[in-house]
Amino acid sequence: MFNKLCIIGVGLIGGSVARAAREKKLCKEIVAFGREKNQENLNVAKKLGVIDRYYSDIRQAVENADCVMIATPVGAVESIFALLKDCWSENTIYTDVGSTKGNIVAAVNSILGFIPDNFVPTHPIAGAEQSGVRASVADLFVNKRLIITPVETTSAKAVNTIDGFWRQMGAVVSIMDVKHHDSVLAATSHLPHILAFALVDLLGRKDEQAEIFKYAAGGFKDFTRIASSNPTMWLDICLANKKEIVPLIRQLEDELETIAQMLENNKDRQLINTFTNARDARQRFLDQFK
Amino acid sequence: MFNKLCIIGVGLIGGSVARAAREKKLCKEIVAFGREKNQENLNVAKKLGVIDRYYSDIRQAVENADCVMIATPVGAVESIFALLKDCWSENTIYTDVGSTKGNIVAAVNSILGFIPDNFVPTHPIAGAEQSGVRASVADLFVNKRLIITPVETTSAKAVNTIDGFWRQMGAVVSIMDVKHHDSVLAATSHLPHILAFALVDLLGRKDEQAEIFKYAAGGFKDFTRIASSNPTMWLDICLANKKEIVPLIRQLEDELETIAQMLENNKDRQLINTFTNARDARQRFLDQFK
Repeated sequence: MFNKLCIIGVGLIGGSVARAAREKKLCKEIVAFGREKNQENLNVAKKLGVIDRYYSDIRQAVENADCVMIATPVGAVESIFALLKDCWSENTIYTDVGSTKGNIVAAVNSILGFIPDNFVPTHPIAGAEQSGVRASVADLFVNKRLIITPVETTSAKAVNTIDGFWRQMGAVVSIMDVKHHDSVLAATSHLPHILAFALVDLLGRKDEQAEIFKYAAGGFKDFTRIASSNPTMWLDICLANKKEIVPLIRQLEDELETIAQMLENNKDRQLINTFTNARDARQRFLDQFK
Repeated sequence: MFNKLCIIGVGLIGGSVARAAREKKLCKEIVAFGREKNQENLNVAKKLGVIDRYYSDIRQAVENADCVMIATPVGAVESIFALLKDCWSENTIYTDVGSTKGNIVAAVNSILGFIPDNFVPTHPIAGAEQSGVRASVADLFVNKRLIITPVETTSAKAVNTIDGFWRQMGAVVSIMDVKHHDSVLAATSHLPHILAFALVDLLGRKDEQAEIFKYAAGGFKDFTRIASSNPTMWLDICLANKKEIVPLIRQLEDELETIAQMLENNKDRQLINTFTNARDARQRFLDQFK
Protein backbone atom coordinates (compact mmCIF):
# COMPACT_ATOMS: atom_id res chain seq x y z
CA MET A 1 0.00 0.00 0.00
CA PHE A 2 2.90 2.34 0.85
CA ASN A 3 6.43 1.88 -0.45
CA LYS A 4 7.79 3.90 2.45
CA LEU A 5 6.12 4.77 5.72
CA CYS A 6 7.96 7.17 8.02
CA ILE A 7 6.88 7.14 11.67
CA ILE A 8 7.84 10.04 13.88
CA GLY A 9 7.55 8.84 17.49
CA VAL A 10 7.84 5.05 17.79
CA GLY A 11 6.08 4.52 21.12
CA LEU A 12 3.04 2.40 21.99
CA ILE A 13 0.91 3.75 19.11
CA GLY A 14 3.63 4.36 16.51
CA GLY A 15 5.22 0.99 17.27
CA SER A 16 1.89 -0.81 17.08
CA VAL A 17 1.13 0.81 13.70
CA ALA A 18 4.53 -0.37 12.43
CA ARG A 19 3.93 -3.91 13.69
CA ALA A 20 0.39 -4.05 12.28
CA ALA A 21 1.42 -2.56 8.93
CA ARG A 22 4.23 -5.08 8.64
CA GLU A 23 2.04 -8.02 9.61
CA LYS A 24 -0.63 -7.00 7.09
CA LYS A 25 2.04 -6.26 4.47
CA LEU A 26 0.88 -2.67 4.01
CA CYS A 27 4.37 -1.15 3.67
CA LYS A 28 7.57 -2.21 1.95
CA GLU A 29 9.74 -0.11 4.21
CA ILE A 30 9.14 1.41 7.64
CA VAL A 31 11.53 4.07 8.84
CA ALA A 32 11.56 6.43 11.77
CA PHE A 33 12.83 9.86 12.64
CA GLY A 34 14.18 10.61 16.08
CA ARG A 35 16.23 13.27 17.80
CA GLU A 36 19.36 12.51 19.85
CA LYS A 37 17.44 11.94 23.08
CA ASN A 38 15.28 9.27 21.46
CA GLN A 39 18.08 7.19 19.93
CA GLU A 40 17.95 4.57 22.64
CA ASN A 41 14.24 3.95 22.07
CA LEU A 42 14.81 3.80 18.31
CA ASN A 43 17.62 1.28 18.77
CA VAL A 44 15.18 -0.90 20.68
CA ALA A 45 12.57 -0.46 17.92
CA LYS A 46 15.12 -1.52 15.33
CA LYS A 47 16.34 -4.51 17.36
CA LEU A 48 12.76 -5.66 17.85
CA GLY A 49 12.24 -5.44 14.08
CA VAL A 50 9.48 -2.87 14.54
CA ILE A 51 11.21 -0.45 12.13
CA ASP A 52 13.74 -1.08 9.36
CA ARG A 53 15.95 1.94 10.14
CA TYR A 54 15.92 5.39 11.61
CA TYR A 55 17.36 8.79 10.85
CA SER A 56 18.24 11.78 12.98
CA ASP A 57 17.98 13.95 9.85
CA ILE A 58 14.35 14.77 9.07
CA ARG A 59 14.98 15.29 5.35
CA GLN A 60 16.42 11.79 4.92
CA ALA A 61 13.72 10.27 7.08
CA VAL A 62 10.77 11.59 5.08
CA GLU A 63 12.37 11.58 1.61
CA ASN A 64 10.11 9.81 -0.90
CA ALA A 65 7.81 8.58 1.88
CA ASP A 66 4.26 7.85 0.76
CA CYS A 67 3.08 8.52 4.28
CA VAL A 68 4.54 10.37 7.27
CA MET A 69 2.79 9.54 10.52
CA ILE A 70 3.35 11.76 13.56
CA ALA A 71 2.89 9.68 16.72
CA THR A 72 4.69 11.82 19.27
CA PRO A 73 3.02 13.12 22.43
CA VAL A 74 0.46 15.77 21.50
CA GLY A 75 2.59 18.58 22.94
CA ALA A 76 5.46 17.84 20.52
CA VAL A 77 3.45 17.91 17.29
CA GLU A 78 3.93 21.62 16.63
CA SER A 79 7.73 21.31 16.79
CA ILE A 80 7.56 18.36 14.37
CA PHE A 81 5.61 20.44 11.86
CA ALA A 82 8.26 23.14 12.20
CA LEU A 83 10.83 20.54 11.09
CA LEU A 84 8.63 19.20 8.29
CA LYS A 85 7.88 22.64 6.87
CA ASP A 86 11.12 22.92 4.87
CA CYS A 87 10.86 19.49 3.30
CA TRP A 88 7.10 19.36 2.75
CA SER A 89 6.13 17.28 -0.28
CA GLU A 90 2.94 17.22 -2.34
CA ASN A 91 3.54 13.49 -2.96
CA THR A 92 3.36 12.48 0.68
CA ILE A 93 0.32 12.03 2.91
CA TYR A 94 0.91 13.44 6.39
CA THR A 95 -1.15 12.15 9.28
CA ASP A 96 -1.09 12.22 13.07
CA VAL A 97 -2.57 10.03 15.81
CA GLY A 98 -2.99 12.56 18.62
CA SER A 99 -5.73 12.20 21.24
CA THR A 100 -6.80 15.81 20.64
CA LYS A 101 -7.48 17.26 17.23
CA GLY A 102 -8.31 20.98 17.54
CA ASN A 103 -4.88 21.87 18.87
CA ILE A 104 -3.13 19.75 16.19
CA VAL A 105 -5.00 21.43 13.36
CA ALA A 106 -4.25 24.81 14.96
CA ALA A 107 -0.56 23.90 15.26
CA VAL A 108 -0.35 22.97 11.57
CA ASN A 109 -2.09 26.19 10.61
CA SER A 110 0.20 28.24 12.80
CA ILE A 111 3.40 26.70 11.39
CA LEU A 112 2.46 26.42 7.70
CA GLY A 113 0.03 29.35 7.53
CA PHE A 114 -2.67 27.05 6.11
CA ILE A 115 -3.90 23.46 6.52
CA PRO A 116 -2.55 21.46 3.59
CA ASP A 117 -4.88 19.16 1.66
CA ASN A 118 -2.48 16.22 2.17
CA PHE A 119 -2.63 16.33 5.98
CA VAL A 120 -5.16 13.90 7.53
CA PRO A 121 -5.72 14.25 11.30
CA THR A 122 -6.74 10.97 12.96
CA HIS A 123 -7.17 9.46 16.41
CA PRO A 124 -7.04 5.71 17.10
CA ILE A 125 -9.08 5.05 20.26
CA ALA A 126 -6.77 2.39 21.60
CA GLY A 127 -4.06 2.37 24.16
CA ALA A 128 -2.85 0.96 27.40
CA GLU A 129 -1.49 2.43 30.60
CA GLN A 130 1.95 1.20 29.53
CA SER A 131 3.81 3.28 27.00
CA GLY A 132 6.88 2.92 24.78
CA VAL A 133 7.79 0.66 21.87
CA ARG A 134 8.18 -2.39 24.15
CA ALA A 135 4.45 -2.21 24.92
CA SER A 136 3.52 -2.09 21.21
CA VAL A 137 1.57 -4.98 19.67
CA ALA A 138 0.35 -5.74 16.15
CA ASP A 139 -3.29 -6.23 17.11
CA LEU A 140 -3.73 -3.04 19.18
CA PHE A 141 -6.20 -1.57 16.68
CA VAL A 142 -8.27 -4.65 15.85
CA ASN A 143 -11.96 -3.81 16.36
CA LYS A 144 -11.00 -0.45 17.87
CA ARG A 145 -12.36 2.87 16.67
CA LEU A 146 -10.26 5.12 14.47
CA ILE A 147 -11.61 8.63 14.05
CA ILE A 148 -10.61 10.77 11.06
CA THR A 149 -11.29 14.48 11.49
CA PRO A 150 -10.85 16.09 8.07
CA VAL A 151 -11.04 19.88 7.74
CA GLU A 152 -12.52 21.77 4.77
CA THR A 153 -9.29 21.76 2.83
CA THR A 154 -8.45 18.07 3.35
CA SER A 155 -8.38 16.06 0.10
CA ALA A 156 -10.91 13.24 -0.11
CA LYS A 157 -8.29 11.09 -1.79
CA ALA A 158 -5.89 11.44 1.15
CA VAL A 159 -8.74 10.64 3.57
CA ASN A 160 -9.59 7.50 1.57
CA THR A 161 -6.00 6.32 1.62
CA ILE A 162 -5.68 6.75 5.39
CA ASP A 163 -9.13 5.20 5.90
CA GLY A 164 -8.05 2.11 3.94
CA PHE A 165 -4.73 1.87 5.78
CA TRP A 166 -6.47 1.76 9.19
CA ARG A 167 -9.24 -0.60 8.05
CA GLN A 168 -6.59 -3.05 6.92
CA MET A 169 -5.04 -2.87 10.38
CA GLY A 170 -8.45 -3.93 11.77
CA ALA A 171 -9.81 -0.57 12.93
CA VAL A 172 -13.44 0.58 12.66
CA VAL A 173 -13.20 3.97 10.97
CA SER A 174 -15.48 6.96 11.69
CA ILE A 175 -15.39 10.44 10.20
CA MET A 176 -16.14 13.31 12.58
CA ASP A 177 -15.50 17.04 12.70
CA VAL A 178 -12.66 18.30 14.85
CA LYS A 179 -14.81 20.10 17.41
CA HIS A 180 -17.16 17.14 17.88
CA HIS A 181 -14.19 14.80 18.31
CA ASP A 182 -12.66 16.95 21.03
CA SER A 183 -15.96 17.29 22.84
CA VAL A 184 -16.74 13.54 22.78
CA LEU A 185 -13.24 12.49 23.82
CA ALA A 186 -13.15 15.06 26.62
CA ALA A 187 -16.18 13.27 28.07
CA THR A 188 -15.32 9.61 27.48
CA SER A 189 -11.55 9.69 27.94
CA HIS A 190 -10.00 12.92 29.23
CA LEU A 191 -12.47 13.52 32.08
CA PRO A 192 -12.23 9.90 33.39
CA HIS A 193 -8.43 10.13 33.37
CA ILE A 194 -8.47 13.39 35.33
CA LEU A 195 -10.96 11.89 37.75
CA ALA A 196 -8.79 8.82 38.31
CA PHE A 197 -5.70 10.99 38.83
CA ALA A 198 -7.64 13.27 41.23
CA LEU A 199 -9.04 10.41 43.29
CA VAL A 200 -5.77 8.50 43.60
CA ASP A 201 -3.80 11.67 44.38
CA LEU A 202 -6.29 12.48 47.17
CA LEU A 203 -6.34 8.94 48.56
CA GLY A 204 -2.58 8.57 48.19
CA ARG A 205 -2.14 11.37 50.73
CA LYS A 206 -4.55 9.58 53.09
CA ASP A 207 -2.72 6.29 52.52
CA GLU A 208 0.55 7.86 53.67
CA GLN A 209 -1.13 8.61 56.99
CA ALA A 210 -3.32 5.56 57.47
CA GLU A 211 -2.45 2.73 55.05
CA ILE A 212 -5.93 2.72 53.55
CA PHE A 213 -4.80 0.95 50.33
CA LYS A 214 -4.37 -2.29 52.29
CA TYR A 215 -8.15 -2.48 52.42
CA ALA A 216 -8.88 -1.57 48.81
CA ALA A 217 -10.29 -4.35 46.64
CA GLY A 218 -10.77 -5.36 43.02
CA GLY A 219 -13.26 -2.58 42.29
CA PHE A 220 -10.67 -0.01 43.32
CA LYS A 221 -8.00 -1.67 41.19
CA ASP A 222 -10.10 -1.46 38.01
CA PHE A 223 -11.44 1.98 38.83
CA THR A 224 -7.95 3.42 39.21
CA ARG A 225 -6.19 1.57 36.38
CA ILE A 226 -6.05 4.69 34.20
CA ALA A 227 -4.36 6.60 37.05
CA SER A 228 -1.26 4.56 36.11
CA SER A 229 -1.15 6.30 32.72
CA ASN A 230 1.83 8.37 31.62
CA PRO A 231 1.67 11.78 33.40
CA THR A 232 3.54 13.71 30.67
CA MET A 233 1.35 12.37 27.89
CA TRP A 234 -1.79 13.26 29.86
CA LEU A 235 -0.51 16.72 30.76
CA ASP A 236 -0.20 17.38 27.02
CA ILE A 237 -3.66 16.03 26.24
CA CYS A 238 -5.36 17.89 29.08
CA LEU A 239 -3.75 21.21 28.26
CA ALA A 240 -4.45 20.74 24.54
CA ASN A 241 -8.16 20.14 25.12
CA LYS A 242 -8.73 22.20 28.25
CA LYS A 243 -11.51 24.27 26.64
CA GLU A 244 -13.63 21.12 26.47
CA ILE A 245 -12.37 19.48 29.66
CA VAL A 246 -12.65 22.31 32.21
CA PRO A 247 -16.45 22.81 31.78
CA LEU A 248 -16.91 19.03 32.15
CA ILE A 249 -14.89 18.99 35.38
CA ARG A 250 -17.19 21.71 36.71
CA GLN A 251 -20.30 19.75 35.65
CA LEU A 252 -18.97 16.76 37.54
CA GLU A 253 -18.26 18.90 40.62
CA ASP A 254 -21.92 19.98 40.47
CA GLU A 255 -23.11 16.39 40.09
CA LEU A 256 -20.99 15.34 43.10
CA GLU A 257 -22.27 18.24 45.18
CA THR A 258 -25.86 17.30 44.29
CA ILE A 259 -25.19 13.74 45.49
CA ALA A 260 -23.55 15.03 48.69
CA GLN A 261 -26.65 17.09 49.40
CA MET A 262 -28.99 14.18 48.62
CA LEU A 263 -27.02 12.13 51.17
CA GLU A 264 -27.13 14.90 53.78
CA ASN A 265 -30.90 15.23 53.33
CA ASN A 266 -31.64 11.48 53.03
CA LYS A 267 -33.14 11.89 49.56
CA ASP A 268 -33.26 8.17 48.95
CA ARG A 269 -35.52 8.26 45.89
CA GLN A 270 -33.35 10.83 44.16
CA LEU A 271 -30.20 8.90 45.04
CA ILE A 272 -31.55 5.64 43.73
CA ASN A 273 -32.62 7.39 40.52
CA THR A 274 -29.08 8.69 40.03
CA PHE A 275 -27.49 5.30 40.75
CA THR A 276 -30.02 3.49 38.55
CA ASN A 277 -29.58 5.94 35.66
CA ALA A 278 -25.84 5.34 35.90
CA ARG A 279 -26.24 1.57 35.89
CA ASP A 280 -28.63 1.69 32.94
CA ALA A 281 -26.35 4.03 31.01
CA ARG A 282 -23.39 1.71 31.55
CA GLN A 283 -25.52 -1.19 30.34
CA ARG A 284 -26.22 0.75 27.12
CA PHE A 285 -22.45 1.23 26.79
CA LEU A 286 -21.86 -2.52 27.28
CA ASP A 287 -24.68 -3.56 24.95
CA GLN A 288 -22.99 -1.99 21.95
CA PHE A 289 -20.19 -4.59 22.21
CA LYS A 290 -22.68 -7.43 21.71
CA MET B 1 -16.75 -26.15 63.35
CA PHE B 2 -20.47 -25.29 63.57
CA ASN B 3 -23.22 -27.90 63.83
CA LYS B 4 -25.73 -25.41 62.49
CA LEU B 5 -25.11 -22.18 60.62
CA CYS B 6 -28.12 -19.98 59.90
CA ILE B 7 -27.69 -17.42 57.13
CA ILE B 8 -30.12 -14.54 56.89
CA GLY B 9 -29.86 -13.14 53.37
CA VAL B 10 -28.55 -15.71 50.87
CA GLY B 11 -27.25 -13.39 48.16
CA LEU B 12 -23.77 -13.04 46.68
CA ILE B 13 -22.03 -12.86 50.07
CA GLY B 14 -24.33 -15.13 52.12
CA GLY B 15 -24.40 -17.69 49.31
CA SER B 16 -20.63 -17.61 48.91
CA VAL B 17 -20.15 -18.11 52.68
CA ALA B 18 -22.47 -21.14 52.50
CA ARG B 19 -20.60 -22.59 49.52
CA ALA B 20 -17.17 -21.97 51.10
CA ALA B 21 -18.24 -23.34 54.51
CA ARG B 22 -19.60 -26.46 52.85
CA GLU B 23 -16.53 -26.98 50.68
CA LYS B 24 -14.22 -26.58 53.68
CA LYS B 25 -16.52 -28.77 55.84
CA LEU B 26 -16.98 -26.02 58.44
CA CYS B 27 -20.70 -26.69 59.08
CA LYS B 28 -22.83 -29.82 59.38
CA GLU B 29 -26.01 -28.01 58.45
CA ILE B 30 -26.62 -24.69 56.70
CA VAL B 31 -30.10 -23.19 56.94
CA ALA B 32 -31.57 -19.87 55.94
CA PHE B 33 -34.32 -17.56 57.06
CA GLY B 34 -36.36 -15.65 54.54
CA ARG B 35 -39.59 -13.70 54.40
CA GLU B 36 -42.33 -14.40 51.84
CA LYS B 37 -40.87 -12.05 49.21
CA ASN B 38 -37.55 -13.93 49.28
CA GLN B 39 -38.90 -17.46 48.89
CA GLU B 40 -38.05 -17.63 45.20
CA ASN B 41 -34.41 -16.77 45.85
CA LEU B 42 -34.29 -19.31 48.70
CA ASN B 43 -35.77 -21.99 46.44
CA VAL B 44 -32.93 -21.32 44.01
CA ALA B 45 -30.40 -21.50 46.87
CA LYS B 46 -31.82 -24.86 47.94
CA LYS B 47 -31.91 -26.26 44.40
CA LEU B 48 -28.31 -25.21 43.87
CA GLY B 49 -27.39 -27.02 47.10
CA VAL B 50 -26.10 -23.79 48.63
CA ILE B 51 -28.34 -24.26 51.72
CA ASP B 52 -29.91 -27.40 53.18
CA ARG B 53 -33.29 -25.84 54.00
CA TYR B 54 -34.97 -22.58 54.82
CA TYR B 55 -37.62 -21.29 57.19
CA SER B 56 -40.01 -18.39 57.10
CA ASP B 57 -40.24 -18.58 60.89
CA ILE B 58 -37.26 -16.89 62.52
CA ARG B 59 -37.50 -18.96 65.72
CA GLN B 60 -37.20 -22.26 63.82
CA ALA B 61 -34.45 -20.88 61.59
CA VAL B 62 -32.11 -19.84 64.42
CA GLU B 63 -33.01 -22.57 66.96
CA ASN B 64 -29.86 -24.28 68.27
CA ALA B 65 -27.71 -22.51 65.67
CA ASP B 66 -24.06 -22.12 66.66
CA CYS B 67 -23.82 -19.12 64.42
CA VAL B 68 -26.35 -16.73 62.87
CA MET B 69 -24.93 -14.65 60.04
CA ILE B 70 -26.83 -11.60 58.80
CA ALA B 71 -25.98 -11.02 55.15
CA THR B 72 -28.90 -8.82 54.06
CA PRO B 73 -28.44 -5.37 52.55
CA VAL B 74 -27.17 -2.97 55.22
CA GLY B 75 -30.51 -1.13 55.38
CA ALA B 76 -32.38 -4.28 56.46
CA VAL B 77 -30.13 -5.24 59.38
CA GLU B 78 -32.07 -3.27 61.99
CA SER B 79 -35.34 -5.05 61.13
CA ILE B 80 -33.56 -8.41 61.37
CA PHE B 81 -32.34 -7.59 64.87
CA ALA B 82 -35.92 -6.67 65.80
CA LEU B 83 -36.91 -10.21 64.78
CA LEU B 84 -33.97 -11.82 66.57
CA LYS B 85 -34.59 -9.93 69.81
CA ASP B 86 -37.28 -12.29 71.09
CA CYS B 87 -35.34 -15.47 70.40
CA TRP B 88 -31.85 -14.26 71.33
CA SER B 89 -29.62 -17.05 72.69
CA GLU B 90 -26.45 -16.89 74.75
CA ASN B 91 -25.29 -20.09 73.04
CA THR B 92 -25.24 -18.60 69.54
CA ILE B 93 -22.67 -16.30 67.94
CA TYR B 94 -24.30 -13.56 65.87
CA THR B 95 -22.35 -11.88 63.13
CA ASP B 96 -23.00 -9.66 60.13
CA VAL B 97 -21.15 -8.94 56.88
CA GLY B 98 -22.28 -5.37 56.17
CA SER B 99 -20.08 -2.92 54.26
CA THR B 100 -20.60 -0.31 56.99
CA LYS B 101 -20.10 -1.01 60.68
CA GLY B 102 -21.03 2.10 62.71
CA ASN B 103 -24.68 2.00 61.67
CA ILE B 104 -24.91 -1.76 62.30
CA VAL B 105 -23.56 -1.45 65.83
CA ALA B 106 -25.92 1.49 66.41
CA ALA B 107 -28.86 -0.56 65.10
CA VAL B 108 -28.09 -3.44 67.46
CA ASN B 109 -27.78 -1.02 70.36
CA SER B 110 -31.02 0.69 69.46
CA ILE B 111 -33.00 -2.58 69.22
CA LEU B 112 -31.51 -4.50 72.15
CA GLY B 113 -30.58 -1.54 74.37
CA PHE B 114 -26.98 -2.78 74.55
CA ILE B 115 -24.40 -4.49 72.34
CA PRO B 116 -24.30 -8.18 73.31
CA ASP B 117 -20.93 -9.86 73.86
CA ASN B 118 -21.88 -12.62 71.39
CA PHE B 119 -22.36 -10.27 68.42
CA VAL B 120 -19.29 -9.95 66.14
CA PRO B 121 -19.50 -7.28 63.40
CA THR B 122 -17.44 -8.14 60.31
CA HIS B 123 -16.91 -6.98 56.74
CA PRO B 124 -15.51 -9.23 54.00
CA ILE B 125 -13.88 -6.97 51.39
CA ALA B 126 -14.96 -9.02 48.44
CA GLY B 127 -17.76 -8.70 45.98
CA ALA B 128 -18.70 -8.31 42.37
CA GLU B 129 -21.02 -6.04 40.48
CA GLN B 130 -23.37 -9.02 40.12
CA SER B 131 -25.58 -9.85 43.07
CA GLY B 132 -27.82 -12.71 44.18
CA VAL B 133 -27.21 -16.36 45.05
CA ARG B 134 -26.60 -17.32 41.41
CA ALA B 135 -23.46 -15.14 41.45
CA SER B 136 -22.13 -16.80 44.62
CA VAL B 137 -18.92 -18.85 44.46
CA ALA B 138 -17.00 -20.90 47.02
CA ASP B 139 -13.69 -19.08 46.52
CA LEU B 140 -14.98 -15.51 46.78
CA PHE B 141 -13.04 -14.86 49.99
CA VAL B 142 -9.75 -16.58 49.17
CA ASN B 143 -6.90 -14.10 49.81
CA LYS B 144 -9.44 -11.33 50.40
CA ARG B 145 -9.47 -9.13 53.48
CA LEU B 146 -12.00 -9.77 56.24
CA ILE B 147 -12.24 -7.01 58.81
CA ILE B 148 -13.60 -7.71 62.30
CA THR B 149 -14.67 -4.60 64.22
CA PRO B 150 -15.27 -5.67 67.82
CA VAL B 151 -16.68 -3.15 70.30
CA GLU B 152 -15.72 -2.94 74.00
CA THR B 153 -18.30 -5.49 75.09
CA THR B 154 -17.53 -8.08 72.38
CA SER B 155 -16.24 -11.39 73.81
CA ALA B 156 -12.74 -12.36 72.71
CA LYS B 157 -13.89 -15.97 72.40
CA ALA B 158 -16.61 -15.05 69.92
CA VAL B 159 -14.12 -12.96 67.93
CA ASN B 160 -11.69 -15.92 67.84
CA THR B 161 -14.39 -18.26 66.56
CA ILE B 162 -15.41 -15.90 63.75
CA ASP B 163 -11.75 -15.19 62.98
CA GLY B 164 -11.08 -18.93 62.59
CA PHE B 165 -14.21 -19.44 60.47
CA TRP B 166 -13.12 -16.80 57.96
CA ARG B 167 -9.47 -17.90 57.89
CA GLN B 168 -10.59 -21.39 56.99
CA MET B 169 -12.57 -19.91 54.10
CA GLY B 170 -9.28 -18.38 52.89
CA ALA B 171 -9.70 -14.79 54.11
CA VAL B 172 -6.92 -12.59 55.52
CA VAL B 173 -8.35 -11.32 58.80
CA SER B 174 -7.70 -7.86 60.30
CA ILE B 175 -9.09 -6.37 63.50
CA MET B 176 -10.02 -2.69 63.39
CA ASP B 177 -12.20 -0.33 65.37
CA VAL B 178 -15.60 0.57 63.96
CA LYS B 179 -14.85 4.23 63.27
CA HIS B 180 -11.54 3.47 61.53
CA HIS B 181 -13.24 0.84 59.36
CA ASP B 182 -15.94 3.24 58.22
CA SER B 183 -13.41 5.95 57.49
CA VAL B 184 -11.10 3.66 55.46
CA LEU B 185 -13.91 2.04 53.49
CA ALA B 186 -15.52 5.40 52.73
CA ALA B 187 -12.25 6.33 50.99
CA THR B 188 -11.36 3.10 49.19
CA SER B 189 -14.81 1.79 48.30
CA HIS B 190 -17.77 4.10 48.92
CA LEU B 191 -16.25 7.24 47.36
CA PRO B 192 -15.10 5.41 44.18
CA HIS B 193 -18.59 3.92 43.76
CA ILE B 194 -20.25 7.32 44.11
CA LEU B 195 -17.75 8.77 41.68
CA ALA B 196 -18.43 6.05 39.11
CA PHE B 197 -22.20 6.52 39.50
CA ALA B 198 -21.83 10.32 39.22
CA LEU B 199 -19.66 10.17 36.10
CA VAL B 200 -21.78 7.62 34.25
CA ASP B 201 -25.02 9.40 35.19
CA LEU B 202 -23.57 12.66 33.82
CA LEU B 203 -22.20 11.06 30.63
CA GLY B 204 -25.35 8.97 30.17
CA ARG B 205 -27.33 12.18 29.71
CA LYS B 206 -24.77 13.38 27.15
CA ASP B 207 -24.88 10.00 25.40
CA GLU B 208 -28.64 10.34 24.91
CA GLN B 209 -27.97 13.51 22.96
CA ALA B 210 -24.78 12.65 21.09
CA GLU B 211 -23.96 8.91 21.25
CA ILE B 212 -20.65 9.53 22.98
CA PHE B 213 -20.40 5.97 24.35
CA LYS B 214 -19.68 4.68 20.82
CA TYR B 215 -16.26 6.25 21.17
CA ALA B 216 -15.45 5.10 24.69
CA ALA B 217 -12.66 2.53 25.02
CA GLY B 218 -11.25 -0.05 27.41
CA GLY B 219 -10.13 2.50 29.98
CA PHE B 220 -13.70 3.76 30.25
CA LYS B 221 -15.04 0.22 30.59
CA ASP B 222 -12.79 -0.58 33.56
CA PHE B 223 -13.22 2.83 35.12
CA THR B 224 -16.99 2.53 35.12
CA ARG B 225 -17.34 -1.16 36.04
CA ILE B 226 -18.48 -0.36 39.58
CA ALA B 227 -21.24 1.89 38.16
CA SER B 228 -22.95 -1.41 37.25
CA SER B 229 -23.30 -2.25 40.96
CA ASN B 230 -26.69 -2.77 42.61
CA PRO B 231 -28.28 0.68 43.19
CA THR B 232 -30.37 -0.39 46.23
CA MET B 233 -27.44 -1.97 47.98
CA TRP B 234 -25.34 1.13 47.40
CA LEU B 235 -28.09 3.47 48.51
CA ASP B 236 -28.09 1.63 51.84
CA ILE B 237 -24.32 1.74 52.18
CA CYS B 238 -24.02 5.41 51.24
CA LEU B 239 -26.78 6.51 53.61
CA ALA B 240 -25.40 4.33 56.41
CA ASN B 241 -21.92 5.85 56.14
CA LYS B 242 -22.77 9.34 54.95
CA LYS B 243 -20.96 11.03 57.85
CA GLU B 244 -17.68 9.68 56.46
CA ILE B 245 -18.59 9.88 52.78
CA VAL B 246 -19.93 13.42 52.44
CA PRO B 247 -16.72 15.15 53.65
CA LEU B 248 -14.72 12.98 51.21
CA ILE B 249 -16.99 13.98 48.31
CA ARG B 250 -16.32 17.63 49.19
CA GLN B 251 -12.54 16.99 49.34
CA LEU B 252 -12.72 15.47 45.90
CA GLU B 253 -14.74 18.44 44.59
CA ASP B 254 -11.93 20.68 45.88
CA GLU B 255 -9.26 18.50 44.27
CA LEU B 256 -11.14 18.63 40.93
CA GLU B 257 -11.56 22.38 41.16
CA THR B 258 -7.84 22.76 41.86
CA ILE B 259 -7.08 20.74 38.73
CA ALA B 260 -9.58 22.77 36.69
CA GLN B 261 -7.82 25.97 37.78
CA MET B 262 -4.36 24.51 37.05
CA LEU B 263 -5.61 23.76 33.52
CA GLU B 264 -7.10 27.22 33.08
CA ASN B 265 -3.84 28.81 34.20
CA ASN B 266 -1.51 26.39 32.35
CA LYS B 267 0.17 25.30 35.60
CA ASP B 268 1.99 22.44 33.92
CA ARG B 269 4.42 21.70 36.74
CA GLN B 270 1.64 21.50 39.31
CA LEU B 271 -0.45 19.32 37.00
CA ILE B 272 2.36 16.92 36.34
CA ASN B 273 3.02 16.69 40.10
CA THR B 274 -0.60 15.78 40.71
CA PHE B 275 -0.66 13.18 37.93
CA THR B 276 2.71 11.74 39.01
CA ASN B 277 1.68 11.54 42.67
CA ALA B 278 -1.42 9.66 41.57
CA ARG B 279 0.56 7.23 39.43
CA ASP B 280 3.09 6.63 42.21
CA ALA B 281 0.34 6.12 44.78
CA ARG B 282 -1.37 3.55 42.56
CA GLN B 283 1.97 1.78 42.13
CA ARG B 284 2.22 1.53 45.96
CA PHE B 285 -1.28 0.03 45.92
CA LEU B 286 -0.28 -2.50 43.24
CA ASP B 287 3.04 -3.36 44.93
CA GLN B 288 1.29 -4.76 47.98
CA PHE B 289 -0.11 -7.60 45.84
CA LYS B 290 3.42 -8.76 44.94
